[in-house]
Amino acid sequence: MNVDFGNALGSEAVTGVSEESLERLDDRVRRAHRRISTGIDDREFGYASLALPEDTDAEAIREAVAGFDPDAVLTVGIGGSALGAETITEALGVENHYSLDNVDPERTRALLGSLPLESTLVNVVSRSGTTAETLANFLVVREAMDEAGVEWTERTVVTTGDSGPLRELADEHGLATCSVMEGVPGRFSALSAVGLVPAAALGCDIEGILRGGAAGRKSLEPSLFECPAYAYGAIAYALETRGATVNAFVPYAERLEPLAEWFAQLWAESLGKDGVGQTPVRALGATDQHSQLQLYRAGRKDKLVTLLRPSEREDEPIPETDIEALSYLGGGTLGELLDAEFEATEASLAAAGQANVRLEIDRLDAEGVGRLLYDLEAACVLVGELSGVEAFNQPAVEWGKRAARGLLGAGEFEEAEAVDEKTVRYVE
Amino acid sequence: MNVDFGNALGSEAVTGVSEESLERLDDRVRRAHRRISTGIDDREFGYASLALPEDTDAEAIREAVAGFDPDAVLTVGIGGSALGAETITEALGVENHYSLDNVDPERTRALLGSLPLESTLVNVVSRSGTTAETLANFLVVREAMDEAGVEWTERTVVTTGDSGPLRELADEHGLATCSVMEGVPGRFSALSAVGLVPAAALGCDIEGILRGGAAGRKSLEPSLFECPAYAYGAIAYALETRGATVNAFVPYAERLEPLAEWFAQLWAESLGKDGVGQTPVRALGATDQHSQLQLYRAGRKDKLVTLLRPSEREDEPIPETDIEALSYLGGGTLGELLDAEFEATEASLAAAGQANVRLEIDRLDAEGVGRLLYDLEAACVLVGELSGVEAFNQPAVEWGKRAARGLLGAGEFEEAEAVDEKTVRYVE
Repeated sequence: MNVDFGNALGSEAVTGVSEESLERLDDRVRRAHRRISTGIDDREFGYASLALPEDTDAEAIREAVAGFDPDAVLTVGIGGSALGAETITEALGVENHYSLDNVDPERTRALLGSLPLESTLVNVVSRSGTTAETLANFLVVREAMDEAGVEWTERTVVTTGDSGPLRELADEHGLATCSVMEGVPGRFSALSAVGLVPAAALGCDIEGILRGGAAGRKSLEPSLFECPAYAYGAIAYALETRGATVNAFVPYAERLEPLAEWFAQLWAESLGKDGVGQTPVRALGATDQHSQLQLYRAGRKDKLVTLLRPSEREDEPIPETDIEALSYLGGGTLGELLDAEFEATEASLAAAGQANVRLEIDRLDAEGVGRLLYDLEAACVLVGELSGVEAFNQPAVEWGKRAARGLLGAGEFEEAEAVDEKTVRYVE
Repeated sequence: MNVDFGNALGSEAVTGVSEESLERLDDRVRRAHRRISTGIDDREFGYASLALPEDTDAEAIREAVAGFDPDAVLTVGIGGSALGAETITEALGVENHYSLDNVDPERTRALLGSLPLESTLVNVVSRSGTTAETLANFLVVREAMDEAGVEWTERTVVTTGDSGPLRELADEHGLATCSVMEGVPGRFSALSAVGLVPAAALGCDIEGILRGGAAGRKSLEPSLFECPAYAYGAIAYALETRGATVNAFVPYAERLEPLAEWFAQLWAESLGKDGVGQTPVRALGATDQHSQLQLYRAGRKDKLVTLLRPSEREDEPIPETDIEALSYLGGGTLGELLDAEFEATEASLAAAGQANVRLEIDRLDAEGVGRLLYDLEAACVLVGELSGVEAFNQPAVEWGKRAARGLLGAGEFEEAEAVDEKTVRYVE
C-alpha cells in the first residue's frame, strides 16, 4: 500500500496538519512502533493479529477444505466472522461465496432457496460457538440441507475455538474444522482461517494473500515517513484531533465494496471508545460522487476522505460513437474514465480545503489484497496507541447482547428490563 | 411511517431535545409546512417532488415497458438515476433487477457476461442525456448486445429530458421512452418514471407504490406532533443543532439495504451545504451491531441513530435443537430474534445516552415502500427549511465534473489543471 497525504497537510486542508507537527508526532510513532513490535513478538492479545502472516497455517486450511470441491461456499457468521472472508473473496473476483451474516428471515429463506445445497460447502464461523445469530442460522441451514436430502455433516466445515457448543458438535459428527487463533479479535482475523477458508475452498491463492500480509509486516518501520501503514494511521489520528471525526472510506473498485464494510468494523469497533474514534463512513467511487460529494465539499469540515484505488486493472474499451456530445468518450476506456473521476474528485476536495488521503495498491491480486488488509490493520493499531485506547476489546457491545438474550428467554438479565421501560413518544 | 422519538428527548440522550424546545420548534414547523405546501401546489422547483404521487403517470410507464416481458432489467444510470429504482425493486423482493451505476470495467464486463441479453430490458436513465458514466456504460452495453446478436433498439427503454443526446437517440431509433418530471431533482425522483420503470417491467404494483406516496402527502400536517415525516425531520434538525452531526441510518431488513444508500444520497446532497448537514452513515441491522455498535455507544456523542423496521414480515422458524447452550433459540423464529436484537440495540443506545429514533412501517409491500420514500423525502425537505439551506440543488458537485471532463479531453477546463498541481507527499 502506498500513501499520499499531500492533501491532508495544513497548507491544503482546513483540518490539515503541518509538517512540523508531523515531525513531532513521529516521536510518538516511534514509541508506538516499539510497543507494537514487542506485542507482535510476544504474541500479546490483539497484537498477535499482526503476526498472522507468519502464524497462519495455510496447509491446515487446505486440508480442512480438501475434497469438498464446492460449487458455492455459504459462510454462516456475523461481524468479524464473516466480513474478512467476504472481503477477500470479493476482492479477488470470486463470485460463488455467499453469506448469512444477518437473521433476516426473508433473506435467509431466499438464499437457501437459490443455492445448490448438494454442492455447497457450509462454512460456520463463531469463536465462542454461541453467537445467537450464527447458530440460529446454522440450525435453519442444517434443516434445509436435511430437507434437500443432503447429509449436512459431509458438507460442513467449522471454524471455532477449542471449546464450546460448535466445537462439541464438530467433534461429535467428525466435521472438518479449523481453529481460531488465540489472541486475535474477530475484526483482525481476516488473515487467519476465519478469513481464508472460503477463499481456499474456492481455489484462491491463500499463500499469496499471506505473502502480501508478510510484506506488510516487513514494511513496519519506526517512522510515519518510512512506513505507509503508519503514515495513514498517523494522519488519521492527527486529523481526528483537529476535527476530522468522520473517516469516509471510498474505494474506486466495485470489488472493494466489502472492504469498505470491513474497514468500517475495524475502525469503529477498535477505536470507538472512551468518547473518541472516527466514525467510518463507507462509500464507493465513482458512484458516490453522485451522492456524497456535495456534502464532503460543502458540509462541515469534520471529515477525512480516504480515496483508495488499484494502480492497474483489467480494462474495458468504450466503443466509438457517432453521438457528437459523447465523442470524447469513444476510444477511451472505462478504467480511464474511472481514474479521471478519482483524480478529479481528489482535486475537487482539495480545492474546497477538505482533507483527503490517497491509498494505492498495485493491483487486486492475492498479494495486493493481503498487503492491504495487513496495512489497514497496522494503521488501526497505531491509531489505538496514539489515541490511548485499547484497540482490541469491544466492551460496549455486551450490554445489548445481554438484553437480547434476556428478551429471548435465555436467562435473567436486568438489561432486558430496560427494554420494557423505554420512553415512548409516538407520532403516527 | 410511524415515529417514536422518546429516546431523542433531552431526558434520555446527551444531544437530546426537551419537550419545551420542540413546542417552540413546532412554530417553525408550521411556517415551513406553509412554505412546502405552497411549493407543492405551485409545482415549484424541488417542491414538485412531493407532488409526484399525484403527477406521475403510471399508465405511461406501463405503456413504455409493455411488450418487453423481460427476464431481467439492467438499469444504466448513476446516483439518483439508479438508486430509487434499486431501492424499490429490492424492497419489494424483486431479484432480477441489476444496475450499472459505476464505471468499473471489471464489474461491467462481469455483469454483461452473466446476463441473458436477449431477454434483458436495458433501462437507460439520464436527465441531461450527457452523464459521462451512464453514457459510457451504455455504449459498452450496446456493443455487447450487438455482439450477442441482440437488436439493442428492441430491448431498450430510455428515461431522459425533452432534449439532449439521449432523447435524440431515442427519437432516431424509435425507442420506448419515459420523460423525467420537470422540477424534480434526481434524488427526489424515485416516485417518478426514474424510479418506477424497472419495477413496472418486472411486474410490481407501481400503482400501489404511488398510493403509498399519496398517503404520505395526505399525512403532511402543520405540526411535528401530528405528522410522522415532520416529526422525524424536526428531531433530526434539533439534534443536529445540539451536536448530532452524524445520522446513522440502520434498517433492520436486508431488503432495505439499498434504501439506506438512497437515504444517504437524499440527506447528503440535499442538506450538506453552507457548512451544515448531517453526515449520513448507512448501516444494516442486526449485522452492524457486530461492527458499529461499540462506536455508537462509546464513541463521541455526535450521532443520531435512526432504527427502522417493518412491523410485520414473513418469518422463518428456528428448528429445535438438542444442543443445550442453544436450546433457548429452538422453537423461536428468526424474525423474533431480529426483533429482539432491534429492541435490545435501541435500549442499549438509550442506556448509553446515545440519541436514537425508531421508524416503523407496517410491512414491506408496495404501499409501505411508497409511503416510506415519500415520508423520508418530506422529512428531508423540512430539514432544509429549518436549516435555511436550498435542499434541491447540488452546486458543489460541478467542480469535479468539470475537472473530469477536462482530464478526458472534452474541452478546456481550468479545474483539470488543479489535478496536475496536486501537492504530493508520498510514502511507499
